[in-house]
Amino acid sequence: MSSNSFGKLFTVTTFGESHGPAIGCVIDGCPPGLPLAVEEFRADLDRRATGKTRHTSQRREADEVEILSGVYEGKTTGTPIALLIRNTDQRSKDYGDIAQTFRPGHADYTYWQKYGIRDPRGGGRSSARETTMRVAAGVVAKKWLAERHGVRVRGHMAQIGEITPGSFDWSVVEQNPFFWPDAHEVSVLESYMDALRKSGDSVGARVNVVADGVPPGWGEPIYGKLDADIAAALMSINAVKGVEIGDGFDAVTQHGSQHRDEMTMDGFTSNHAGGILGGISTGQAIVASMVLKPTSSILIPGRSVNLAGEATDVVTKGRHDPCVGIRATPIAEAMVALVLMDHALRHRAQCGDVGDISPRIP
Amino acid sequence: MSSNSFGKLFTVTTFGESHGPAIGCVIDGCPPGLPLAVEEFRADLDRRATGKTRHTSQRREADEVEILSGVYEGKTTGTPIALLIRNTDQRSKDYGDIAQTFRPGHADYTYWQKYGIRDPRGGGRSSARETTMRVAAGVVAKKWLAERHGVRVRGHMAQIGEITPGSFDWSVVEQNPFFWPDAHEVSVLESYMDALRKSGDSVGARVNVVADGVPPGWGEPIYGKLDADIAAALMSINAVKGVEIGDGFDAVTQHGSQHRDEMTMDGFTSNHAGGILGGISTGQAIVASMVLKPTSSILIPGRSVNLAGEATDVVTKGRHDPCVGIRATPIAEAMVALVLMDHALRHRAQCGDVGDISPRIP
Amino acid sequence: MSSNSFGKLFTVTTFGESHGPAIGCVIDGCPPGLPLAVEEFRADLDRRATGKTRHTSQRREADEVEILSGVYEGKTTGTPIALLIRNTDQRSKDYGDIAQTFRPGHADYTYWQKYGIRDPRGGGRSSARETTMRVAAGVVAKKWLAERHGVRVRGHMAQIGEITPGSFDWSVVEQNPFFWPDAHEVSVLESYMDALRKSGDSVGARVNVVADGVPPGWGEPIYGKLDADIAAALMSINAVKGVEIGDGFDAVTQHGSQHRDEMTMDGFTSNHAGGILGGISTGQAIVASMVLKPTSSILIPGRSVNLAGEATDVVTKGRHDPCVGIRATPIAEAMVALVLMDHALRHRAQCGDVGDISPRIP
Amino acid sequence: MSSNSFGKLFTVTTFGESHGPAIGCVIDGCPPGLPLAVEEFRADLDRRATGKTRHTSQRREADEVEILSGVYEGKTTGTPIALLIRNTDQRSKDYGDIAQTFRPGHADYTYWQKYGIRDPRGGGRSSARETTMRVAAGVVAKKWLAERHGVRVRGHMAQIGEITPGSFDWSVVEQNPFFWPDAHEVSVLESYMDALRKSGDSVGARVNVVADGVPPGWGEPIYGKLDADIAAALMSINAVKGVEIGDGFDAVTQHGSQHRDEMTMDGFTSNHAGGILGGISTGQAIVASMVLKPTSSILIPGRSVNLAGEATDVVTKGRHDPCVGIRATPIAEAMVALVLMDHALRHRAQCGDVGDISPRIP
Repeated sequence: MSSNSFGKLFTVTTFGESHGPAIGCVIDGCPPGLPLAVEEFRADLDRRATGKTRHTSQRREADEVEILSGVYEGKTTGTPIALLIRNTDQRSKDYGDIAQTFRPGHADYTYWQKYGIRDPRGGGRSSARETTMRVAAGVVAKKWLAERHGVRVRGHMAQIGEITPGSFDWSVVEQNPFFWPDAHEVSVLESYMDALRKSGDSVGARVNVVADGVPPGWGEPIYGKLDADIAAALMSINAVKGVEIGDGFDAVTQHGSQHRDEMTMDGFTSNHAGGILGGISTGQAIVASMVLKPTSSILIPGRSVNLAGEATDVVTKGRHDPCVGIRATPIAEAMVALVLMDHALRHRAQCGDVGDISPRIP
Repeated sequence: MSSNSFGKLFTVTTFGESHGPAIGCVIDGCPPGLPLAVEEFRADLDRRATGKTRHTSQRREADEVEILSGVYEGKTTGTPIALLIRNTDQRSKDYGDIAQTFRPGHADYTYWQKYGIRDPRGGGRSSARETTMRVAAGVVAKKWLAERHGVRVRGHMAQIGEITPGSFDWSVVEQNPFFWPDAHEVSVLESYMDALRKSGDSVGARVNVVADGVPPGWGEPIYGKLDADIAAALMSINAVKGVEIGDGFDAVTQHGSQHRDEMTMDGFTSNHAGGILGGISTGQAIVASMVLKPTSSILIPGRSVNLAGEATDVVTKGRHDPCVGIRATPIAEAMVALVLMDHALRHRAQCGDVGDISPRIP
Repeated sequence: MSSNSFGKLFTVTTFGESHGPAIGCVIDGCPPGLPLAVEEFRADLDRRATGKTRHTSQRREADEVEILSGVYEGKTTGTPIALLIRNTDQRSKDYGDIAQTFRPGHADYTYWQKYGIRDPRGGGRSSARETTMRVAAGVVAKKWLAERHGVRVRGHMAQIGEITPGSFDWSVVEQNPFFWPDAHEVSVLESYMDALRKSGDSVGARVNVVADGVPPGWGEPIYGKLDADIAAALMSINAVKGVEIGDGFDAVTQHGSQHRDEMTMDGFTSNHAGGILGGISTGQAIVASMVLKPTSSILIPGRSVNLAGEATDVVTKGRHDPCVGIRATPIAEAMVALVLMDHALRHRAQCGDVGDISPRIP
Repeated sequence: MSSNSFGKLFTVTTFGESHGPAIGCVIDGCPPGLPLAVEEFRADLDRRATGKTRHTSQRREADEVEILSGVYEGKTTGTPIALLIRNTDQRSKDYGDIAQTFRPGHADYTYWQKYGIRDPRGGGRSSARETTMRVAAGVVAKKWLAERHGVRVRGHMAQIGEITPGSFDWSVVEQNPFFWPDAHEVSVLESYMDALRKSGDSVGARVNVVADGVPPGWGEPIYGKLDADIAAALMSINAVKGVEIGDGFDAVTQHGSQHRDEMTMDGFTSNHAGGILGGISTGQAIVASMVLKPTSSILIPGRSVNLAGEATDVVTKGRHDPCVGIRATPIAEAMVALVLMDHALRHRAQCGDVGDISPRIP
């Protein structure tokens, strides 16, 4: 019921502000017996971290995870897994001006209107710093999904501004700072991002996530649909303004004879549905896509108002990403993994006796 | 926790199959004292109903609502409001063949894989017949939102296939069978739909929903964001494959200097955000958009498999919509209204003491 | 989240007022494939029904269940099971006076203070009529528990006023109108109840529920403990003022050397714990007990106030039970069954891979 | 949905094992603007702490609370409040034998059967150490209830073994280590406890909680009743085996003419109901009572089995309480406060517009 919790059976509750002493999460509902070591969080946290290349914010956080509970002798025990990361590179003084002003495009004004109080340091709770814990929790979900069901959840950038990949190769996605599937374009992107950063502006992006190996039958009608839960999961990521499953908005202009995926005992003939029909997985790859708006924190002055209700100009001085979409790739993967793990558990709760059903399309 | 329930505090639980004896819902959490009469459901149910024009399915349901509980002497009492609608125009014989076959693009195969059993008559639980109860529940939410907060939730079609409105006028939306905001194009759409129906094919569509009058401060970080809940709400509607808030996917190519909505004490200078920042309403209009795939039930044969695992061709014989998007407009409105009402209650639970905060942008 | 729903994974939502057109429930989360026919509800509904003997209220309801959804060709499909019972023997005129007056010991005053409006006919939503649907839902849970896990849930009266059973025999419990385990005392109870009824007064009672066959491992720390959920389930029954697990309040004066159940590979040596340790089932019988207060609706006048704030005397004229505890036995069974079924599903969600663990105490 | 979370709107999630690095909690849903300082936790944590007198376990924990989030410049912000306490006095070597053996009356065997793995150090998650965080969260709830509504939640011991208070005086409850309301009996209790400790045995207890100042109208029918939630809250405390509201089990032998609380415009004439009718507060004091079983960890050997399924004797060597009931008083207060705060928020969510209703009994 907590609005800072995600998931019904695999429930992740996060806490912490951008410049508070720490951020953390509590993972409740993880099956017992899963091997889990603190080192396993490193890779994904580094993928999400700032300060690794010049193309992201220069805040440098150690992101050292401490496992506070739920793991005994290297295995999960079924009790809540609490993870803690101390904040180490806060520069709250960068935000002195911001405390009196509402930055356009940010949550400053809405938090103020909602609560009548806000922690302005680094965006407080509304900062993307929170997504660190999503990625950490996603590590646990991804591992269980892989070990128990052979599910693999991967993401990649699909567009930055006007630039789209000319080719697609999963193997290069992790070889460049843009999670870009076309190795030949990486230098183009670097130049583009350098120019963008110098201009003091920012740009939007599209990120895709693909989950392979999901068996048919995950997802629950009517309001617990797999695609509805993925939509909420991705839309809950900072700066996301749209979500698609499968063909998404391209379906507006499609005909039924074109969109519907025909079925043969050798497999579906296409995957316009993105692996979900009626809110339940088909056994094909789950394909989701999301858009991230351009960062609102830019060096170009913007009109706003201050606490006194006076007009003012805002120029962001803190460290920010010219394209928040870049680091969103591991976050999107994590969120899809959280949804899938939750539904894996929900499915076996209700349908644990059903077993494999014929005919099954491979 | 029920997957057939929607909403945390204003909770709607629906039940019923397309060709079962009845469909219904239970609305729990409605504030007491709201005047509510059975006649008030008529208008919106008619907007969603089939068989009103030649452009939708020819199934003709009376959709007579019975209020079973929760209303006393014309007012809500705070106890659960149960609504019941008997099904009256089932033609389950149309579905005799379907019981042995999985229709491409439908939930037949996924329900079968999940449950090992399914009610094939009219699509059973996966039929859009269920959305009748969403519209009925939405009537209650819309009324409370209007009376208590002056909130108005309206929808319109924004695209059918390649056709987009050439002009926009709210006042004509309810004057034509397509919820179309441009009166001059209605005859074009009629011809287009007639041709489509004759071809036996179907087409996709885009529907927009706009909520005016929402005060700033509704919505909850981090996983109970207003936009995340709207995304789940709309994606849970049959055939929806994508959801946008504000500029949505257009933000991919936008720059920060272009996207962020500047603020003045006379108002925001634009509404690219669609009325939501950091998951919380800004006080501007909430703007959401969704895509509906083309109906999978078409007269053109499609390859599929049957229960024995044999290849077969499927031709839909039942009564279906060539463009399911048309009737989705009132459904989308209802879902947005349910989200807003839920968040109105959630907001006053946590922030009931906060009161109006200065400065407030009009 | 709905307060008229019970259970996390096997979720029962009830609706309806005592003298409204109908009462009903929606059961969400039932596993598919369970055979279920409308006739199966008869036995337990009759056990709970009024008007069967002179010792209960003389309201005579047909209690004809209609299955509105979720069952196809005699089996559950995994979709919500809606059950409906029309009210047929309302005598709302009996309650004309009550509409202006708050009956002592009833929920009249509290509903009025909470909602500012109430349905006074027969107690409205606060009437024990609602428990009919608990019993109906319990039929489904009991059947699944028995078929899937060999669990049997049974209840009996353990005390009426000062009278306690002199002997115990499960086989006679269903052979008398008091669910009394000592056949020799039935005539004593009949005389006692006749005298009580003539006096116009009422009396309290104690009901026990025993669940056999529950495997070890059901229940979830820390706030989803099996005993905590049973406590809430039983305390939610009308007129219940206390709940015990195992030895209950007798443990106040016990020593640890006396209370703790020692363990051998032939079994536990005792069951003071009532089959639950740390909120998780031990594999022994689950034993719960509850007290029901004496009915507040009695023929003896009681001081109260009316809507105008004036002092008044209340004499109940409607049809009531001199000992509500009697009919509470099947309700208590149903509630324990709902809790157990919910936890069976929750257990296999989280621990579905754990399997049988050694050593297991038989 | 998390089973380690408590509360719907004021949601407390706890984590941590007895001998792990830390315990903690996340409080979600606290209204913004509540002054909160780390020093405020001291008093109640000390009341619950071990090692303060010779009558409780000699484990000595510093119980230093760190506020990790949700508080800015001394006030709550509406975002999650995370509290952390490092464990400092673990003596896990005391539990070396226990790792291979199931202690009678403990959760060792049930956790093992549920999860197939357990953290045996100090009882792991099943230890009463977890209740530290309940008390910490209760501090926040108590403060809000007091400041916002004038509600005061207090507890006292009502029985230890056969000893009951001869007189009652709230002012002495906090003046002795037994939370005992009769100052004259404290020396008797000290002698009793000394003898008990020397005997190596333990004893049960009864704890009462009283909440004054609760307005009428809190609590939700049907499954969210205030008394049902209190029952779950108290039953979820370690070692609790029974819960009563108002007269509780005494009502078994009462008559309706005796039990029902008559109403006058000067007040109710009695409070047999314990302040709750129909699951909703009456405006009178809320009165709840619970029994705690005698500690199972005693120096007297008990029969049990080990991991190999062999018979063995268990003698507890760790530091334990001869009467766990003593320290349960602040825990019980905290749990009742959590329930009340949750219902205060739920009430204003649904009935925020109702206002004060006439007639109101003072």
